Amino acid sequence: MTLHAEILEQTAVWQQSYAENLEVVQAIAQAVPLDSIHHAFIAARGTSDNAARYASYLWGTMNQLPVTLATPSLFSLYQQPPRLRNALVIGISQSGQSPDIVNVVVEGKRQGQPTLAITNEPNSPLAQTADFVINIHAGVETAVAATKTYTTQLLAIAMLSAAWSQSDAQFAVIKRLGAWGTAVLAQDEIIGQMAQRYRYMAQCVVLGRGYNYATAYEWSLKLKELTYVVAEPYSSADFRHGPIAIVDRGFPVMAIAPAGAVLPDLHRLLQKLSTEKQAELLIISNDEATLALANSPISLPADLPEWVSPLIGILPAQLFAYHLTRAKGYDTEAPRGLNKVTRTQ
Amino acid sequence: MTLHAEILEQTAVWQQSYAENLEVVQAIAQAVPLDSIHHAFIAARGTSDNAARYASYLWGTMNQLPVTLATPSLFSLYQQPPRLRNALVIGISQSGQSPDIVNVVVEGKRQGQPTLAITNEPNSPLAQTADFVINIHAGVETAVAATKTYTTQLLAIAMLSAAWSQSDAQFAVIKRLGAWGTAVLAQDEIIGQMAQRYRYMAQCVVLGRGYNYATAYEWSLKLKELTYVVAEPYSSADFRHGPIAIVDRGFPVMAIAPAGAVLPDLHRLLQKLSTEKQAELLIISNDEATLALANSPISLPADLPEWVSPLIGILPAQLFAYHLTRAKGYDTEAPRGLNKVTRTQ
Repeated sequence: MTLHAEILEQTAVWQQSYAENLEVVQAIAQAVPLDSIHHAFIAARGTSDNAARYASYLWGTMNQLPVTLATPSLFSLYQQPPRLRNALVIGISQSGQSPDIVNVVVEGKRQGQPTLAITNEPNSPLAQTADFVINIHAGVETAVAATKTYTTQLLAIAMLSAAWSQSDAQFAVIKRLGAWGTAVLAQDEIIGQMAQRYRYMAQCVVLGRGYNYATAYEWSLKLKELTYVVAEPYSSADFRHGPIAIVDRGFPVMAIAPAGAVLPDLHRLLQKLSTEKQAELLIISNDEATLALANSPISLPADLPEWVSPLIGILPAQLFAYHLTRAKGYDTEAPRGLNKVTRTQ
Repeated sequence: MTLHAEILEQTAVWQQSYAENLEVVQAIAQAVPLDSIHHAFIAARGTSDNAARYASYLWGTMNQLPVTLATPSLFSLYQQPPRLRNALVIGISQSGQSPDIVNVVVEGKRQGQPTLAITNEPNSPLAQTADFVINIHAGVETAVAATKTYTTQLLAIAMLSAAWSQSDAQFAVIKRLGAWGTAVLAQDEIIGQMAQRYRYMAQCVVLGRGYNYATAYEWSLKLKELTYVVAEPYSSADFRHGPIAIVDRGFPVMAIAPAGAVLPDLHRLLQKLSTEKQAELLIISNDEATLALANSPISLPADLPEWVSPLIGILPAQLFAYHLTRAKGYDTEAPRGLNKVTRTQ
């Protein structure tokens, strides 16, 4: 299957993944109740690390659970793992193969902590090590650039949050994701035309904050992997602390800015970039005033709750990266320098 | 005082800071023993966030303490702070002013957790909120780009680690930092000549791993703030996972690669970048074989222990950013778009 087909089939994949994992996440929430853990300790790399970023915001706001992102080299190269007291130790990996991610889960188990694997490969070393496994059921991902495995990782994270909260309202929102996603994916052709304008873009920054800090990271990773654009992700808060200096007239800034708690902050920054810096703005949003700032606006559904917006907001970003790859004349299926399975020590 | 003078005076500042804080860190280590805390929860932004990255590796390897980097928007914009059980809650901020950093420490206190401020301003809101304060005693920092406040934050983190370990050996190494730093700063003129070659550089990546993941971030932040180069930091492990695709012939890659546990991994990557990609390499190292790969090599002292190398390794990076700013004809004292005190919500 091609990258384009894998992007477009995501809503169908979510439906399957949801059905397969509804009981699984309930069982995990029951076996590892929030009272028993003081933080989640997550090991992940690349795209999966961006899914972990989503967990750090979602489980923070919805479940009051602090999330620690593991520094895998402490376990592998330094061989000095930290003491993981009262931690749920989690490895996220599409392939479940990377030795340094497996290492962290092995050590969590050695220290007697509960462990969880979120992976597309239930027979992988990662899945076979962990006490609990969420098989994301994304199906075979043929394209080298991860798309559907990323959004089904986000789905697993959202479902586990809802299970911890025992919240029917949260589950009801998750069930609507397919409809929102389908509406956004229908903009495929418009996004394909829009990408032409960026044919000669060599560098850009990608802004997001809160839940969509993850989206900014994942969007910029797709741009780098597929289009070789030097794309750097920032939270709007950090971007003001120095890096804003790189922006001058026409500098391309991408932003994911759905309505919600962080929008006012992001809107102020985008307004400043537009009026004071004359930056080039490509904005994904469902707020009219924010979209009005953009040279290239991409619409999200009006009633999309912020906490699930990373699943929907990344879809046009994936399409944009795909179409820009084609506009630049690169190979969408075989990006240079990339392998499907990474084996980091 | 100018940026250049502030870079050059750092070893003298460290001496002062060390003397002022020796008893302070011992008292904190006694009042908050490692047995009483399951993780450190650190809120910081910009340069201070890079100091927090050092803490996450150093306290991990030396003190087996997991470090959670706070997501300040959970406390401010989302108003949904996580439950901070068994956490030492730390705010790091040069000015001690940023409301979102102060917020995190206020919430830590409200939840009954021990709190610590690491700041250059003992009368700031941050210092006045926290139970414990390490005043980094960097003196007035006039230049907008932070240099000596960064390295004295690292010094405070290293000293607290040594105090927790009750390790005379660690303190003995810290006392030698001044001599190592002086030797490196003596390369000022050579680095000034080296910077000429990069006069027209518009983008680059900066690699580091482990302890010096912090250095890669801080080096790239200085380049962005001062020279407006789009400089993106990476761990060598993450860089292989996709972003390496952006490198082609002559693409500039900066690396901080001192001898130590992560060097073999970094060396392999630099070798690949040199031989397979013909990348342009600027490398800071004390390993001869690694320096031999560089178009522009910068030497570190041969006997420098890896765990304190971020304090010494950032010095030539600061000098490089300073000289490149001048070579590009920009103002080293008044970079565009930057304020000394940031007030992020």
